[in-house]
Amino acid sequence: MASTRIREAKESDCGDIMRMIRELAEFEKLSHQVKISEEGSRPSPPPSAFFVIPPISVALRADGFGENPFFHCLVAEIIPAPGEPQGSLVVGYGLYYFIYSTWTGRNIYLEDIYVMPKYRGQGIGTKIIKKVAEVALRKGCSQFRLAVLNWNKKAVNLYKFLGAQDLTESEGWLSFRFEGEAMRELAGC
Amino acid sequence: MASTRIREAKESDCGDIMRMIRELAEFEKLSHQVKISEEGSRPSPPPSAFFVIPPISVALRADGFGENPFFHCLVAEIIPAPGEPQGSLVVGYGLYYFIYSTWTGRNIYLEDIYVMPKYRGQGIGTKIIKKVAEVALRKGCSQFRLAVLNWNKKAVNLYKFLGAQDLTESEGWLSFRFEGEAMRELAGC
Repeated sequence: MASTRIREAKESDCGDIMRMIRELAEFEKLSHQVKISEEGSRPSPPPSAFFVIPPISVALRADGFGENPFFHCLVAEIIPAPGEPQGSLVVGYGLYYFIYSTWTGRNIYLEDIYVMPKYRGQGIGTKIIKKVAEVALRKGCSQFRLAVLNWNKKAVNLYKFLGAQDLTESEGWLSFRFEGEAMRELAGC
Repeated sequence: MASTRIREAKESDCGDIMRMIRELAEFEKLSHQVKISEEGSRPSPPPSAFFVIPPISVALRADGFGENPFFHCLVAEIIPAPGEPQGSLVVGYGLYYFIYSTWTGRNIYLEDIYVMPKYRGQGIGTKIIKKVAEVALRKGCSQFRLAVLNWNKKAVNLYKFLGAQDLTESEGWLSFRFEGEAMRELAGC
């Protein structure tokens, strides 16, 4: 029988990860916000006399698999049973980075977690979460955070079942974002 | 007349920052969650046969002002007018780090923003936000995020007035956190 393993992503997984990033954004009905590409660079912000905008390439491969990666990534891989003709298959991912709490120090933020629809209901999401908990403890973190859309009841229920606390519900935390024109106006450019 | 400037924090500001971290937690009615200290280290997690827990020192000074800082910090400083006898005074701070969005690349997370009660209503919070926007653009980020408690109406209104989007309201994002026993159980230790 085939088995699933969670392993660290390699550079050669970038194609699969990029495909799943798009699938996740589509599932979340927020595809229009996806600006990143596997190799390409972000369109430059408008030129300004006040700011030197470095030409940072915002591309999955460069950002995650260079010398000082901006994030870490786990992939869920289906390994075929011995003798089965097909190769292994990447069917999910969990992408995280280190954050800093002024209350508890260095922690992990799980930015994305995704399992392809066909492979859901087999505990793969749970396996990814477990691996993140393991990495967090290994790295001396006492917590890891993540965000979930309120209508994604399956995910909400899974995280609660696994022991997570809904901080929006229990403490009243709201997520805010500054971007685009508002951000440029604030910066005076 | 005295003036206010926003500048990068120095190691010698740690005492002021630590004091304000505690004041902010108290204001947010979540002081019991503060485990960090200026110099000390976090109590070690329980020993485990499966995990090598590195003895990471979780202390503001070591974490923010070493060779590879886990965060960056701005402070708001009141500069006395020439001839005034008192020295300058640190009355607020904004603590941030870099995060990674799989949709828009590297961005900033403003973990804490605080102005001492006596100095509120003078636009110091806005000045901190503006500086964060400036840093974000300089570093090639297209967004910065932050979290706010739903009952902190003054902050909610200020962020909205400055152009931030409430993502919990507009898109339905909830904040979840794994910690403590739940995390150790997940990791199997």
